[in-house]
Amino acid sequence: MRLHDFTLSGNCYKVRLFLALLGREAELLQVDLRGGAQRSPEFLALNPRGQVPVLEDEGLSIHDSQAILAYLARRYADAGWFPQDAAGQARVIAWLSFAANEAARGPGQARLHALFRMPGDLKEAQQRALRVLELLDTHLAHHTWLAEGTAPSIADIAVYPYVALAGDGGLDLSPYTHVAAWFARIRALPGYIGMPGL
Amino acid sequence: MRLHDFTLSGNCYKVRLFLALLGREAELLQVDLRGGAQRSPEFLALNPRGQVPVLEDEGLSIHDSQAILAYLARRYADAGWFPQDAAGQARVIAWLSFAANEAARGPGQARLHALFRMPGDLKEAQQRALRVLELLDTHLAHHTWLAEGTAPSIADIAVYPYVALAGDGGLDLSPYTHVAAWFARIRALPGYIGMPGL
Repeated sequence: MRLHDFTLSGNCYKVRLFLALLGREAELLQVDLRGGAQRSPEFLALNPRGQVPVLEDEGLSIHDSQAILAYLARRYADAGWFPQDAAGQARVIAWLSFAANEAARGPGQARLHALFRMPGDLKEAQQRALRVLELLDTHLAHHTWLAEGTAPSIADIAVYPYVALAGDGGLDLSPYTHVAAWFARIRALPGYIGMPGL
Repeated sequence: MRLHDFTLSGNCYKVRLFLALLGREAELLQVDLRGGAQRSPEFLALNPRGQVPVLEDEGLSIHDSQAILAYLARRYADAGWFPQDAAGQARVIAWLSFAANEAARGPGQARLHALFRMPGDLKEAQQRALRVLELLDTHLAHHTWLAEGTAPSIADIAVYPYVALAGDGGLDLSPYTHVAAWFARIRALPGYIGMPGL
């Protein structure tokens, strides 16, 4: 198994974290994003979107961090990580959308502007990030894990990184005590690994 | 089955379209977004995110348009609409992320700015929309359906609406002939319905 990776990418960290929780190893291949390696013909053949992460496994090339989590769960993990009944699957997928949209556009984008100096409206991204934090804090006041099961799922792994990195985008996480308790539960999972900034 | 709906929402249309293709009927309940009904306590109890669509079925309340498509596919459709093997599922989910992120932030947001006068950077959204159209056109030059199967999947239904509505955001779709052919294949599916703007 090979992971085309970038250490500071929260989307890549999602995959590294899940692999660690599953006790699986992948060969990590650093993609030189600053040098534009993600736009090389070789990389675009792996992922036409020109984004990391990309997982290669058993002759398959899988891109999109949410899709990679789903693949690893279905292929290598206990069923609880991605329930396969219609309702359970839908509950997880609603959070995968949240990871791809709200979490990426809120805390994820605030971090890109503040930490990596990407042009754009930092204040607007921070406003979106505050709504993400408020929504999560309300939800986690009554739920142990995002998708409402008794065990963690790929929903937690997909949403956690950019929320936990919100400080990099200039956000103050301290008012969100239920979010903090959820962070602690994730960090207590056997095999947990962090990333720079966490 | 009841769908909390808003006629001009592309996300709601995804669900109406898929129900029509499946030959299923849902009671449509219009949510008065302009009057703020999505922020009422009753609606937030159904969907804490305060967004349409929401599907109620068999005592469940399901939100997020991608999750609703997944639910309907798993519960009521032939397996081809959402393959359940690890690789097939991942291929579809990569496009669900694309629908929640790139398609929403590109053509979807351009339409919000241009048609509904939502404040924000129209030009930037149009730039993102152009990248979406180019990526799809390249992909569809070699694939009949987005998720690479021989039949349509919920990937097509999730991505189609905001791309097909890109004209509402001031985009010119005419250069994208492979996208146009894909539109035609979707529109030829038995049971197909349109929406205002299509």
